[in-house]
Amino acid sequence: MGYNISEYIDHYKEIIEKEITVYFQKMNVPQQLKDSMIYSLEAGGKRLRPILLIASYEAYSKDISKVISSSIALEMIHTYSLIHDDLPAMDDDDYRRGKLTNHKKFNEATAILAGDALLTTSFEAIANDSKLTAIEKVEIIKMLAQCSGPKGMVAGQILDMEAEEKVVSLEELEKIHTLKTGELVRFAVYIGGYLANASKEQLSALEDFAYYLGLIFQVQDDILDITGEEEKLGKPVGSDEQNEKSTYPKLLGLEGAISKKESYVKKAKEALIKAEAENSYLMGITDYFSQRDH
Amino acid sequence: MGYNISEYIDHYKEIIEKEITVYFQKMNVPQQLKDSMIYSLEAGGKRLRPILLIASYEAYSKDISKVISSSIALEMIHTYSLIHDDLPAMDDDDYRRGKLTNHKKFNEATAILAGDALLTTSFEAIANDSKLTAIEKVEIIKMLAQCSGPKGMVAGQILDMEAEEKVVSLEELEKIHTLKTGELVRFAVYIGGYLANASKEQLSALEDFAYYLGLIFQVQDDILDITGEEEKLGKPVGSDEQNEKSTYPKLLGLEGAISKKESYVKKAKEALIKAEAENSYLMGITDYFSQRDH
Repeated sequence: MGYNISEYIDHYKEIIEKEITVYFQKMNVPQQLKDSMIYSLEAGGKRLRPILLIASYEAYSKDISKVISSSIALEMIHTYSLIHDDLPAMDDDDYRRGKLTNHKKFNEATAILAGDALLTTSFEAIANDSKLTAIEKVEIIKMLAQCSGPKGMVAGQILDMEAEEKVVSLEELEKIHTLKTGELVRFAVYIGGYLANASKEQLSALEDFAYYLGLIFQVQDDILDITGEEEKLGKPVGSDEQNEKSTYPKLLGLEGAISKKESYVKKAKEALIKAEAENSYLMGITDYFSQRDH
Repeated sequence: MGYNISEYIDHYKEIIEKEITVYFQKMNVPQQLKDSMIYSLEAGGKRLRPILLIASYEAYSKDISKVISSSIALEMIHTYSLIHDDLPAMDDDDYRRGKLTNHKKFNEATAILAGDALLTTSFEAIANDSKLTAIEKVEIIKMLAQCSGPKGMVAGQILDMEAEEKVVSLEELEKIHTLKTGELVRFAVYIGGYLANASKEQLSALEDFAYYLGLIFQVQDDILDITGEEEKLGKPVGSDEQNEKSTYPKLLGLEGAISKKESYVKKAKEALIKAEAENSYLMGITDYFSQRDH
């Protein structure tokens, strides 16, 4: 297709946002609930998870109509987790990406229910997709529940909470990140390959790739909290330090964190070669994740 | 089998509770999250929804091993909805069935995450059940998402919230109850019949039955708030009146509510005859729902 990586991301960002809008606009649900779900779904976001899923699929196959439901389901899961994470009882954030958080725009009860509704709808979107076989649907749903539930993302959230204000080891830190953000990355990369009929060996290498990509994402997040520009990030820098959060730079120093990230980039790319996906956009996405400034 | 209805309910209550315990004990998730999920799953409850699912299945078929995952998934959904409903931002309850609510026993963040985890795990339990075909799993997941999500239970919860402290019509009241509690009853009755290979006509009659059964349950709930004994109910009577909640007795008078309930019992039993399930335990469950004192 000859896009550069920024064009590729922008192209699919637009497609995903259109698909999400179409899916929810036609949904017959109470107005307040619908408004609240759509508000958070449309509140910006880079759509990196669904784009990653599509890129993984395109490494092996064409015609992305087969991965639309998984992609928007993944964005629903990500969005529900942000809504619940922002609640007063959790991170207590009033703003996200410069917009009021869901419970500030609506109210707490509505935000709790909108999160529950998005979580439930993610499974429904897959179950109702006429482009997938029943066996494919079951495989996607299994993986989505595993990666997002109490063995995956939700486990990461509770461990992250428990780790607050105590110094954790690098090993513990990576475990938390792998669960909290890495598991959805794994879902994206694995399901993209799976639906494109990647081989067992390719899928296994893709999972290795996803593991390192998730860590790259997190290390860069920590680095940006020190070196980033507030305007581009849309949030204050230095907040990790203030919150006494365990981060890569804190445990390894800034130079150490950067060199850690580079070693992960190397491993991620090696895994892509093993997955025979080195000529795909997954390669560019790896650099994009590593070098992003927001 | 020759159980009377109380024995039947007690028998399957025990089986369901054992299956839930087995499912969660072996789950490898963070301890605090696991404790919190199990606490609410084991906090009593009559298990009426899963028992109803089993009774519906047994109206047409034997060997209940096929409905275990749907039954415990349904109880997980019911439990998650109670945990989130009790939160300070929702009903703000400190006790349920005489025990501390989840957020009082643990904390609010844990309760939110435990609810999210149970909701997610309900879909996983079905997707992983080796006794079901992929087509059956997809049908169950579709129905579960529809009945419990923003078109079902969650819609009922938001409409119920909006209706608080305003007088609603009987029609609006029934719509709220049908969504908030009736949709999970519909899931139970429909999926029981579906997995037992009930015919299309039988399934359609079962859905009518479920509709009236859900309403019977609710009318009796409202009646017990006036005529019930606090000790048996495990909650104070007269709380609806105090909360200015719209109820059947308020809209129709106590006598009117009782006669409304009796007309629903009649319609429920007619639907059971149409479903060719009049010799099943569904008949006894209807009377049990109508006459329960707690």
